[in-house]
Amino acid sequence: MVPGHEIVGLVTEVGRNVTKFKAGDRAGIGCLVNACHSCHNCKSDLENYCPKAIVTYNGADVDGTRTQGGYSDTIVANQRYVVRIPDNLPLDAGAPLLCAGITVYSPLKYFGLAEPGKSIGVVGLGGLGHVAVKFAKAFGAKVTVISTSPGKEKEAIEQLGADAFLVSHNAEQMQAAMGTLDGILNTVSATHQIVPLISLLKTNGKLVLLGVPPVPFELPSYTLLMGRKLVAGSGIGGMKETQEMIDFAAEHNITAEIEVISMDYVNTAMDRLAKADVRYRFVIDVGNTLGA
Amino acid sequence: MVPGHEIVGLVTEVGRNVTKFKAGDRAGIGCLVNACHSCHNCKSDLENYCPKAIVTYNGADVDGTRTQGGYSDTIVANQRYVVRIPDNLPLDAGAPLLCAGITVYSPLKYFGLAEPGKSIGVVGLGGLGHVAVKFAKAFGAKVTVISTSPGKEKEAIEQLGADAFLVSHNAEQMQAAMGTLDGILNTVSATHQIVPLISLLKTNGKLVLLGVPPVPFELPSYTLLMGRKLVAGSGIGGMKETQEMIDFAAEHNITAEIEVISMDYVNTAMDRLAKADVRYRFVIDVGNTLGA
Repeated sequence: MVPGHEIVGLVTEVGRNVTKFKAGDRAGIGCLVNACHSCHNCKSDLENYCPKAIVTYNGADVDGTRTQGGYSDTIVANQRYVVRIPDNLPLDAGAPLLCAGITVYSPLKYFGLAEPGKSIGVVGLGGLGHVAVKFAKAFGAKVTVISTSPGKEKEAIEQLGADAFLVSHNAEQMQAAMGTLDGILNTVSATHQIVPLISLLKTNGKLVLLGVPPVPFELPSYTLLMGRKLVAGSGIGGMKETQEMIDFAAEHNITAEIEVISMDYVNTAMDRLAKADVRYRFVIDVGNTLGA
Repeated sequence: MVPGHEIVGLVTEVGRNVTKFKAGDRAGIGCLVNACHSCHNCKSDLENYCPKAIVTYNGADVDGTRTQGGYSDTIVANQRYVVRIPDNLPLDAGAPLLCAGITVYSPLKYFGLAEPGKSIGVVGLGGLGHVAVKFAKAFGAKVTVISTSPGKEKEAIEQLGADAFLVSHNAEQMQAAMGTLDGILNTVSATHQIVPLISLLKTNGKLVLLGVPPVPFELPSYTLLMGRKLVAGSGIGGMKETQEMIDFAAEHNITAEIEVISMDYVNTAMDRLAKADVRYRFVIDVGNTLGA
C-alpha cells in the first residue's frame, strides 16, 4: 500500500474531455479520487460524505484494485478531484492544505465560525491545528490554542498568530476561560476528555471533532443542555469547497509550516511523527528524490 | 418544597407597573420566574440560559428563600415570566405546554427542524415526546417515533398522528431506517445508547438531547465525522419563545393528552408516574380540590 493524500505537482497530460486543466498547470489531489456522483451528497458537492467515496490511497477502486497514493512521481485522476493551485501558493507548503487545510476550513464555514469577532479554540497544535489557527485568524477570529504542551505557547502566539494559549491540564487556566468560546476545533486523536472543552463554550457554542480517538468520549447530557451547546463531527470537505479553500489560502498567504524531506528519509520521518517531532508537516520532495 | 411548573389560571390582581395583564386574564407560568436581565442571554431573550435564572420551584430566590411552585391556589410573579393563554387553548390541556411544549418547540425551531418536509424522529413517547410529535406534525414534518415499547405503536400513529414507529431494540427495523432522519428529539432520561440514534441520521443530521440520563453517553467520534452529524442539548426556552409556542399551539389546536386529577390523588399519581402509567401528563385541578 502506497500512502500520501496531500499531493501537488504539474499536469503532464490531459484526457480529451478534460476542460479544467492543460499540461503544465499546477494541480493538487487531496483525500478523494472518486465517488458515485448520483447520491444527494454528491449532488450537493459533498463527495466527502458519499457512501461510495473512494479515498486516494488504500481505497477500494471501481475496478476492484486498491488505490495508490502520492508517494509516486505520477498519478492519474478524474478532473473533478483535481484542484487548481494558484500561482502564488508554494507547491510544497501548500500541499498539506489538501487534507489538513480543508479539514479545518470546512467546519469553520459550515458551523458559522468563519466570521470576524468570533472566539475560536483550537485543540492540539499539530498538522491540522496549526493551519486551523491561520484560517481562523484570516477569518477575523480571536484564536485560543488549547494544548497539553506548555512549550508550544511561544510558537503558537509569536509564530502562528494565536491570541491566547491554554494548557489543558492547568485547572486554573481552564476555569478562567469557561464560557468564553463560540466554537472549538478539536484536532486531537489521542484519548482525552471533552467535558472540559464543552465547559469553555459560550451558550450556543460548538465543539467540532476532527480526530478519531480510539476510545469513545464520555458525554453527560447536561453539559450540552446547560447552554444549548453541541458536539459535531466533520470530515475533510467536498471538492468545490476544497478549491474555495485553496483559493482563500492563496489570497491570504496561508501555508502549512513544513519540513521538506527526501524519499529515503520517510521511515525516519515516520518515527519522528510518532513522537510528534515535526513542526508541523513533513512534505516529501518526491519529484527530485524518488529516483535517487 | 412545593413542586409544579406548568401552571395556569386567571389573573386575580396586577401590580401598578403591569401592562401585559389585567384581572381576569388567562395566564400561565412555566419553569422560570426570574433571571438577571442584564447578561447576553437575557438580552437575547434566552433567560433559560441565564446563569442566574431562578426556577419556579425549589430555586434560590433573590431574597434567599426557596421558590414555591404551582401546587398552590395563587402565585405571584414578574409579568416577564407570565404567558398569555389564548382563549381557545384549554387551561388544563394547555398547561403542560409550559414546560413540555417549549422544551420540544425551541429545539425544533433553533436547529432548523421546524420546516415542511423534514423527517423528524422522536425518542420516547411520554410527556415531552407526545407533544413533540404534535408540534413536528404541525410544522409539516414526517414523524417517526422511536420507543422501547411496541405497545405504543398504535396510539403513536392513530391518536398522535405519527407517520412511522421504530422499536429501538428491533435491530432489523433500526437497520432499515439508517440514514433517514434530518433530526431527532431525544426525550429519554433513562440510561441508553445514542450511537444507534446517530445512525438513523442523514448527513448533516442533528440529535438533540432533552433528557438527563444518570450515566454519560458513550460517543465515538467517527459516528459524527461520517456525515457531519451533531449531538446537541436544549433546555426549555426563553419567555418570548414560550409565548410564541403557546400562540402556535392555540392556532394549531395542539394540546397535551392529560388526565386531570384532584390534589389528594398526588401521591398515587407519583407512584403511577414512576411506572410510566400515564397518557401522557397528569394535571392537578388545584383550584377545585386544594381546599377539599
